[in-house]
Amino acid sequence: MKSIENYKEDFLLYLNEAIKVKEPKKLYEPIHYILQLGGKRLRPVLTLLICDIYNGDVAKAMNAAAAIEVFHNFTLIHDDIMDNAIIRRGKTTVHEKWNINAGILSGDAMMIMAYQLLEKYEPQLYKKLNILFSKTALEVCEGQQLDIDFETKTNVSIPDYIKMITYKTSVLVAAAMKMGAILANVSNDEAEKIYKFGLNLGIAFQLQDDYLDTFGDVATFGKEIGGDINENKKTFLFLKALEVSNDKDKKELLKWYSSNNSSELKVNAVTKIFSKNKIQELTKREIENYTKTAIGTLDELSVNEDKKEILKNFGLILMNRAL
Amino acid sequence: MKSIENYKEDFLLYLNEAIKVKEPKKLYEPIHYILQLGGKRLRPVLTLLICDIYNGDVAKAMNAAAAIEVFHNFTLIHDDIMDNAIIRRGKTTVHEKWNINAGILSGDAMMIMAYQLLEKYEPQLYKKLNILFSKTALEVCEGQQLDIDFETKTNVSIPDYIKMITYKTSVLVAAAMKMGAILANVSNDEAEKIYKFGLNLGIAFQLQDDYLDTFGDVATFGKEIGGDINENKKTFLFLKALEVSNDKDKKELLKWYSSNNSSELKVNAVTKIFSKNKIQELTKREIENYTKTAIGTLDELSVNEDKKEILKNFGLILMNRAL
Repeated sequence: MKSIENYKEDFLLYLNEAIKVKEPKKLYEPIHYILQLGGKRLRPVLTLLICDIYNGDVAKAMNAAAAIEVFHNFTLIHDDIMDNAIIRRGKTTVHEKWNINAGILSGDAMMIMAYQLLEKYEPQLYKKLNILFSKTALEVCEGQQLDIDFETKTNVSIPDYIKMITYKTSVLVAAAMKMGAILANVSNDEAEKIYKFGLNLGIAFQLQDDYLDTFGDVATFGKEIGGDINENKKTFLFLKALEVSNDKDKKELLKWYSSNNSSELKVNAVTKIFSKNKIQELTKREIENYTKTAIGTLDELSVNEDKKEILKNFGLILMNRAL
Repeated sequence: MKSIENYKEDFLLYLNEAIKVKEPKKLYEPIHYILQLGGKRLRPVLTLLICDIYNGDVAKAMNAAAAIEVFHNFTLIHDDIMDNAIIRRGKTTVHEKWNINAGILSGDAMMIMAYQLLEKYEPQLYKKLNILFSKTALEVCEGQQLDIDFETKTNVSIPDYIKMITYKTSVLVAAAMKMGAILANVSNDEAEKIYKFGLNLGIAFQLQDDYLDTFGDVATFGKEIGGDINENKKTFLFLKALEVSNDKDKKELLKWYSSNNSSELKVNAVTKIFSKNKIQELTKREIENYTKTAIGTLDELSVNEDKKEILKNFGLILMNRAL
């Protein structure tokens, strides 16, 4: 078994070869640009890791890993347009560097290219991977729509929120892993267990992102603290606070979230309400629950203990970034 | 063999069943809206017609026909955003009725749904159809990019232009027909001939669209006459005029096209330059050439004369709309 860093290096070598700028340049340059912006390459690495754990052919899994990564980057381009985001991974976003039309069209082309990357597989395998890929891709769109809907919805429940982050984020992590399992030719039942591991780990990871956005350390989190609060985002923290706080705190929270002004004062006031209502602890507990559920599914896997340990450690490293 | 109108009716019945609005509503309502806007349904009808001509199972071809139509309508939503178009088929465009983000996201979902519509086919056939579908879809994106590039490019040649309309329009017509042939299980060679028929007919059709935009009759064309001229579009007519006219006419033409003002004066002046340089006749000749090439490929087909006649008549009816 290789290290995570080795899988990443191998994947990047493969990706560089697979994605070249060709004519018409204005279509393919933004695609090359976003794919070279960096990032953890978490999803493709997971495809390779899972394939390797089941003694599959890791070289053969490169195409599926690339399909997942190209699709993920397509969603980043289109999401950045929808969110008016100007910075992605410390660099200018595609629609900001070029224009919105370039972002739309190059994004569209990337989705097709993601499908094309699966064409090297033989028909049975090809169809199996494609069905999973399309199902996941449509769920990601539905998750994005739910996220948009929540901006104006006043009664978002915690289960609603969990569904949204599951669709928007976790299903792609889970599908990346399941593809690795499918490529190693495991049983459907086994592939489904891997999917559940990925799904729960993905939810835990997203909840942790919410947590770190308010309670994290700017040095390790890599983003400004309090961004979600300033954007009035209905995160797990906010929704939990509405659920558990008394009427006075709830009223104050809603007052802060009804203003579109960003300020340190607002971040501090909201964080104080969160702290007073033990949102920090309640969120940590939720993250732990999903992490435990994820790791619990590992017990049922048909792989030896060493390999379960690798997956367990991977999950724990991922979850211990700065919590 | 059914009539074109019958294929269309059957297809619409199928499409109504296949595309239902579900949750999240804001994602699926724009999809339902654009698919119900009407239109000739030329592409799906061609899939069914060709499948029938080769004695294929027309009911089985419905999914492929729907995939093509859903993809085509996805391109309309995204193109309308890029073109700032507010009217499509006499109704409000999706991004105008909802907003740009809804247009982007619902369009993305439609592309995935198009792929999903092919999932009912068995793996070998599924893969064959998917490969053709992805290749075509990426060409359509490249065609759209070339069209955008041409807006600011000063030296667009006629072959450049033919390539652009081939990618932007004709490949999808050709692929719709080829899918019908593939579904009827014809040889690759035969399917390729059908593809060429569709490709050349598609080019002829698009050139005719250019022609009618200037020399058509508003009642039969259904759009305002002179729109391309007012938008300074580098159509076949304009490019041909630059090629054949003397320096004085060329200079005047370029002067008109350097202004962003729309006026009847401009349309009349440009039309006069076109007429003086026999652009009407030269364009008609080009349309006839592509139509003849299309119909010429019919001779080589392995179907009986009656069926060749059906395809020939279809081509001629399509090309005789108001020329």
